Amino acid sequence: MSFEEMWAALLPVGRDGGSGGYHRFAWTPPELECRDWFLGEARRRGLDVEHDGNGNLFAWWNPAGAQGPAVVTGSHLDSVPGGGAFDGPLGVVSALAAIDLLRDEGFRPGRPVGVAVFAEEEGARFGVACLGSRLLTGAIDPERARGLRDADGLSFAEVVAAHGLDERQPVGPDEGLLARIGCFVELHVEQGRALDGPVGVASAIIPHGRWRMRFTGEGDHAGTTGLSDRRDPMLPFAHAVLAARDSAARHDGVATVGKVGVVPGGVNAIPSSVTAWLDARGPTDDAVRRTVGETVEAARRAAVEHGVDVEVTEESYSAVVAFDHSLRDRIATTLGGVPVLPTGAGHDAGILSARVPAAMLFVRNPTGVSHAPAEHAEIGDCLAGVEALASVLKNLTGG
Amino acid sequence: MSFEEMWAALLPVGRDGGSGGYHRFAWTPPELECRDWFLGEARRRGLDVEHDGNGNLFAWWNPAGAQGPAVVTGSHLDSVPGGGAFDGPLGVVSALAAIDLLRDEGFRPGRPVGVAVFAEEEGARFGVACLGSRLLTGAIDPERARGLRDADGLSFAEVVAAHGLDERQPVGPDEGLLARIGCFVELHVEQGRALDGPVGVASAIIPHGRWRMRFTGEGDHAGTTGLSDRRDPMLPFAHAVLAARDSAARHDGVATVGKVGVVPGGVNAIPSSVTAWLDARGPTDDAVRRTVGETVEAARRAAVEHGVDVEVTEESYSAVVAFDHSLRDRIATTLGGVPVLPTGAGHDAGILSARVPAAMLFVRNPTGVSHAPAEHAEIGDCLAGVEALASVLKNLTGG
Repeated sequence: MSFEEMWAALLPVGRDGGSGGYHRFAWTPPELECRDWFLGEARRRGLDVEHDGNGNLFAWWNPAGAQGPAVVTGSHLDSVPGGGAFDGPLGVVSALAAIDLLRDEGFRPGRPVGVAVFAEEEGARFGVACLGSRLLTGAIDPERARGLRDADGLSFAEVVAAHGLDERQPVGPDEGLLARIGCFVELHVEQGRALDGPVGVASAIIPHGRWRMRFTGEGDHAGTTGLSDRRDPMLPFAHAVLAARDSAARHDGVATVGKVGVVPGGVNAIPSSVTAWLDARGPTDDAVRRTVGETVEAARRAAVEHGVDVEVTEESYSAVVAFDHSLRDRIATTLGGVPVLPTGAGHDAGILSARVPAAMLFVRNPTGVSHAPAEHAEIGDCLAGVEALASVLKNLTGG
Repeated sequence: MSFEEMWAALLPVGRDGGSGGYHRFAWTPPELECRDWFLGEARRRGLDVEHDGNGNLFAWWNPAGAQGPAVVTGSHLDSVPGGGAFDGPLGVVSALAAIDLLRDEGFRPGRPVGVAVFAEEEGARFGVACLGSRLLTGAIDPERARGLRDADGLSFAEVVAAHGLDERQPVGPDEGLLARIGCFVELHVEQGRALDGPVGVASAIIPHGRWRMRFTGEGDHAGTTGLSDRRDPMLPFAHAVLAARDSAARHDGVATVGKVGVVPGGVNAIPSSVTAWLDARGPTDDAVRRTVGETVEAARRAAVEHGVDVEVTEESYSAVVAFDHSLRDRIATTLGGVPVLPTGAGHDAGILSARVPAAMLFVRNPTGVSHAPAEHAEIGDCLAGVEALASVLKNLTGG
């Protein structure tokens, strides 16, 4: 089963026939189909499959003689709404393909090799990105995670239980499993246009977070309520959108409002509430904090003017992640001096890096588009990524 | 079955347990339950039930000796999303209660009396307000109406057919039925705070319409796409929201953005498109046209700045409706000189007025809130409305 065959098998799963975008939210049918596909590929290779208590999957290559903490690679299989094909799956398919390459050339690793599939990396269902890796490493309070709800009101705890996860293993940090992970190397499609070559190595993940802003006014008739009698939450929301952009520009960062909920959502009704999510990132923690602070201040100012209440909740925040320098340098050297670059995207590797040495390989993205149907990587670059990952696994596991 | 008993029977249908708002979209289960309730009440009174080809219901009181065109009253049973209990149902329940009052005192009308329930008055399902009355009177092209689609992609034609409407009667104007309507008097809860007394009479409906604005940019990753590389449709949308408010204020009108759709709607994805609906109303056609024109101009300016395309579609427009003067004056006189006032809300009576003399009775709304759970009228005012409607029917049908 070549890289191309594995890729072709995953390609139709959860793809919207119209837009070509993927809808693979954690534990929905398309994502479950991706998980089944992964388990099948792992078993076909004789890898030992393990479900942890947080919805993450591991497949272990543990040949006779391999000992000590494992070198783990992998990524995730869930998507944002209408996402691209590469974000997540490229790292999982490449991990399996890299193991195939090593086996084909008769390589026997001195340490176990693991392939991880982390749950809910995008946070598209329960709102917190990297939920599976956060739980594993203790980066989120398990009780908070259990209570997170999806758009249908189902809690994470209910969904996890419904999918038959081992009830003996409670949701939350798993020190036993962490102790078996010597280091983690995640291969991922690059998400900007910064990589000048087929493969690169990550230096850092810039600080990023998401904030929920809830504007509460008063629902009323769109025709019979004079402007001065209104408490219309759409207006401070619009001010917040524009303020976020201006502020991000001032602090050399980015800010995005990509998800909005309007209640009740009638054409001829003034909304009673508008809920919007702000995604903000920047070169430093201070830059992000200032961007969010200024946005919230503008939102509050406009809210007061319109008699609207505003409530801001930080849903997640990841401070700057500088990947382990010695692991990064060792990988870059192994690959003959490929580019080393930071990324604006969050990844499970960034979460893991708090507990184990972690690194990332990037595969070139010719358009820079990501989280959208047009996300793309050339097949030649993907195969170069597999070869690079194989070299790295070989180097890190010893012969 | 008193007014209060009828009211109590309808009250729980389609009410959200949390917000208290009503979700009675045309031909969804709660609205079908309201229709069944109406048909039961009509039959219990021995009224002749008639379904027209456009989804509207009529119940006729046609006692021996009654002749000539009918006096028709009634309203609608559908709601906006999260709407109030009174908008629509008050007119239907009051119509039945007024007939009961007249019968109890032994009154025999010289002309038939009809009670109408118009379909899809709010336009909450298919996007065009007063769809049933527009079709009946020829105010909308039947082919356009048949092709209107709901949020699930079902067409009006499919839904109408699925609910077993008489296939011999095609969707569209019904001259035979119109010829049987001598005049139409709709009782409705007032929707502002303009009525100083339990009951009033409508002078006019101010011009109003709804426009769909579709902003199309380019979906991308919220973290890795620099601000200058973005084509983010959320930004010109926000400009349009603020411009609409400013422009409406300049032209003494109102403008509302109450419904927004964001694609793909991911927290960490720049939207590829934002679709928003603008509801604009004003004292004159010119005021409304200027408000919409200035809003669209601001939207286009911001769209160009952000590399976004914008497409604006007029979904419906109703020019000023001045209700029949002689009918209005006759009703006001019959009721002993009650207030006469215009309204900013569209109604089936406004649509009917193009073909038959039409009038409206308003029942006081103490808070002015409408299209929201808090919409309210005191029971004493509702009963005064029933008595007023009975007096009007008596006067118009002759003894």
